Amino acid sequence: MAEKQYENAMKALHECMEACNYCFDSCLKEDDVKMMVGCIRLDRECADMCGYLEAAISRNSPYISELASVCAKICDDCAEECAKHDHDHCQKCAEACRKCAEECRKIA
Amino acid sequence: MAEKQYENAMKALHECMEACNYCFDSCLKEDDVKMMVGCIRLDRECADMCGYLEAAISRNSPYISELASVCAKICDDCAEECAKHDHDHCQKCAEACRKCAEECRKIA
Amino acid sequence: MAEKQYENAMKALHECMEACNYCFDSCLKEDDVKMMVGCIRLDRECADMCGYLEAAISRNSPYISELASVCAKICDDCAEECAKHDHDHCQKCAEACRKCAEECRKIA
Amino acid sequence: MAEKQYENAMKALHECMEACNYCFDSCLKEDDVKMMVGCIRLDRECADMCGYLEAAISRNSPYISELASVCAKICDDCAEECAKHDHDHCQKCAEACRKCAEECRKIA
Repeated sequence: MAEKQYENAMKALHECMEACNYCFDSCLKEDDVKMMVGCIRLDRECADMCGYLEAAISRNSPYISELASVCAKICDDCAEECAKHDHDHCQKCAEACRKCAEECRKIA
Repeated sequence: MAEKQYENAMKALHECMEACNYCFDSCLKEDDVKMMVGCIRLDRECADMCGYLEAAISRNSPYISELASVCAKICDDCAEECAKHDHDHCQKCAEACRKCAEECRKIA
Repeated sequence: MAEKQYENAMKALHECMEACNYCFDSCLKEDDVKMMVGCIRLDRECADMCGYLEAAISRNSPYISELASVCAKICDDCAEECAKHDHDHCQKCAEACRKCAEECRKIA
Repeated sequence: MAEKQYENAMKALHECMEACNYCFDSCLKEDDVKMMVGCIRLDRECADMCGYLEAAISRNSPYISELASVCAKICDDCAEECAKHDHDHCQKCAEACRKCAEECRKIA
């Protein structure tokens, strides 16, 4: 229902929130959890921020631009961390984060 | 990325969150805001809870069932309130809430 | 439990979240709701952001500074809007927002 | 600003949110992260739910009772898990969770 210009961002944010939370859960199930600590932390940061921005866009918040700037940064960091790990959930998360960072920059 | 069994619920929750927040914003723009007070309040309650449950499902929370029970109740109430108003955003919101309540009951 | 340097910010954020949500609820109960529309909208924006930043600080988020910048701006705007209205809940909210904006700038 | 009857609950929820997020962050820094996986997961669940209920109370939500029931359950589980670990942050978190569960039951 959000305006046309935000359609791609809404989709990217939603997929990124899901990918980050799925990666969070999957990292906690890995044998070598120690190695995944950075991922676990950033997955939570990124999922929460994407969910927050999604809600803000859908309620026509006056702060979409400012929030999108912060979100792009968090997505960038999470993408970089996840990309270091070979697990499928990390690779998919990195991809979702990169796409989301790009969409966030368009509306920032 | 959430498990198959939750796919319909995730979709319904997402659409309900968007419809409620869009309705919240639109109600605040109506000439007769006074009449929309119940709607504004429940739109926020419902949007927030749907967003919360969406995130909980995607991180494989152990409390999906309990949260879905509460969410179904909020969706029912919001649907009932929105259905009273003829505005297009209220009617669409009522429909999204009804669908979401139904999906929440399936996973509760 | 958050580090000493954030103690004042945590307190200000918590009080601001409470004041904004109380003002949101009170505005919806006013006779002339129409006049309170800007307040209602900003109260939600500000309460949500303060709550988000509070949680971020308490989990030692790497993005406290960026989030605090956005939060300071939202608090400023909410303070300005609330200050226009004589209602006790608006005046108290404006004060809580001003204090919170100040604390946010210290950690931004 | 929330009504008198919720004062103790608000305080307990706030302290529990802080204790859980502090424990989340501290668990991720422990040498034996593997052993803390249950704690990390429940700390996030509990912190998020306490924050959600706090906000709901402060905006005079019609669903305080239902949300408090779910929150009490999550607090109980988190207290039980944290109590198993000798780390100071886990013991303090367990105590905050127990106190919060008790307050939640009073308003449920």
